[in-house]
Amino acid sequence: MPRLPSGGCLRGLLAVARRTRLSGGPRRALGGPRRGSCGPGCAPGTPAGADLLRGELDRFGGVSVRLARLDHVDAATFHRALQAAIQQWRSEGRVAAWLHIPILQSRFIAPAAALGFGFHHAESDSSTLALWLGEGPSRLPGYATHQLGVAGAVFDENTRKILVVQDRHKLKNMWKFPGGLSEPGEDIGDTAVREVFEETGVRTEFRSILSLRQQHGIPGAFGKSDMYVVCRLRPRSFGINFCQQECLRCEWLDLTDLASTENATPVTSRVARLLLYGVRAGFDKIDLTAEEFWAAHTGTLCKLYHRDLPDSYKQ
Amino acid sequence: MPRLPSGGCLRGLLAVARRTRLSGGPRRALGGPRRGSCGPGCAPGTPAGADLLRGELDRFGGVSVRLARLDHVDAATFHRALQAAIQQWRSEGRVAAWLHIPILQSRFIAPAAALGFGFHHAESDSSTLALWLGEGPSRLPGYATHQLGVAGAVFDENTRKILVVQDRHKLKNMWKFPGGLSEPGEDIGDTAVREVFEETGVRTEFRSILSLRQQHGIPGAFGKSDMYVVCRLRPRSFGINFCQQECLRCEWLDLTDLASTENATPVTSRVARLLLYGVRAGFDKIDLTAEEFWAAHTGTLCKLYHRDLPDSYKQ
Repeated sequence: MPRLPSGGCLRGLLAVARRTRLSGGPRRALGGPRRGSCGPGCAPGTPAGADLLRGELDRFGGVSVRLARLDHVDAATFHRALQAAIQQWRSEGRVAAWLHIPILQSRFIAPAAALGFGFHHAESDSSTLALWLGEGPSRLPGYATHQLGVAGAVFDENTRKILVVQDRHKLKNMWKFPGGLSEPGEDIGDTAVREVFEETGVRTEFRSILSLRQQHGIPGAFGKSDMYVVCRLRPRSFGINFCQQECLRCEWLDLTDLASTENATPVTSRVARLLLYGVRAGFDKIDLTAEEFWAAHTGTLCKLYHRDLPDSYKQ
Repeated sequence: MPRLPSGGCLRGLLAVARRTRLSGGPRRALGGPRRGSCGPGCAPGTPAGADLLRGELDRFGGVSVRLARLDHVDAATFHRALQAAIQQWRSEGRVAAWLHIPILQSRFIAPAAALGFGFHHAESDSSTLALWLGEGPSRLPGYATHQLGVAGAVFDENTRKILVVQDRHKLKNMWKFPGGLSEPGEDIGDTAVREVFEETGVRTEFRSILSLRQQHGIPGAFGKSDMYVVCRLRPRSFGINFCQQECLRCEWLDLTDLASTENATPVTSRVARLLLYGVRAGFDKIDLTAEEFWAAHTGTLCKLYHRDLPDSYKQ
């Protein structure tokens, strides 16, 4: 493969065809401005107001400006200051500029957009805008792309029954596993246990992940993608008290019946058969079990899921 | 478990403690306003301008207003109109209001926020604001919560070597699998193949998923969560041409060496040992293979991953 004469690489060449590049790494170390850093406007003769936009530098060559402190500034002044700032940042070789804007100061958004900024993301009471200043196609890191839905396949080994529900609003008469979207910051297994409890009243404990489904652009995902994880749960209670707002029915069905009925979604049906195989051949044949790991480059814990590995291979 | 006298359920009770409810289902069917629907302002005596905000109704009881057509309206007029509209929507029993705002019309955001709206999400040249109008805690559906990183464990069965890289910028001297964030709408396997090619120049084909890792709030994820999937790939070429912007080194290592070296991240090390187990006991012991499924309620295809299931169970 040819290398670009400028010292670029195949990755850079391929990225030209794509709208944004995802860097996939830690975004920045936020903190106060580095000692000795200077925002635009420090030099004599700089347009008035440009020094309003003193920003924090990050280790990727970008500059971040928090606009919360500019509540006294009008949109026109901001526009002029930003125009000067962009020029200054380009001359300083910054590769990206980020604006963090409280929702009540959203008057700054349109002026920034007129100067090339776009939304990176927004949530609740704040938005973040970004502008790529570097050479070539944008290498701005992306934002979250997937919602995560988790369902619980609650199988009672004593009775060989599985807990299933029928939606009240969609897919009527089709059995499926109780579940729902994960809460921010919630682990997969905790989502499964919580959703099953809220939807059916049954208490459970997480055993394993059974299956993963990825879909793109489905209704209800606001153009984003969907990851749907089915977990195997062990019941710790059996009385059903299901949520009538969402469910029409909720029952313990014979697993063999669920595996053969036509009144189940294709994915539910497949997972039921996977469970049947597990019942007969051993759950170790189907489970992905969880283990806590220390994630080196973030210094935090994570959960790792994979097929059971004999102890001799773990050490 | 007690049921709320109003006919609510345990799920509703539990949701009080949580900031927003995620409905987990298809959001709405967008289209023109339903025949006979009427926006606020149709009745005589309605405050002037309120009929500006005629919205589309969705099947969940919400109303959506697209502000692109209001480019001639100033912020103050919009504020008055929205105030009247909210009153009207409440009286009509709407449970949610959505505003879709082109970035250059972001002057409407602060007035809407002053009336209780918050950002639901924003991307590129548009933002969406939402306001819960229904009873009890918000049941607005959430937005994407996870970024998806995919790595490729490229194992050559002939030489028993595995393709690994060392970062240029972080975790120097630590071997890991090439990979990166998925592009919007990209399948897991395609991400793995693409990222490996861009980072190393090696062409591959997807074989299976080996492992799944979930982490929350890591640097670089803008407060969101991270799903990291390691795939087993089969090499289709062997010459390395690695991206020097991101990698310091890229080599084919003996799998046994990777599985025992200290110069590998814990997750990389574990996956290497999982692969070693697969080499010795058969890859069917470790693989999650992909199958295309018809997703019933969306009428689209999806990819489903789980442990190999004997054919007799599939039918």
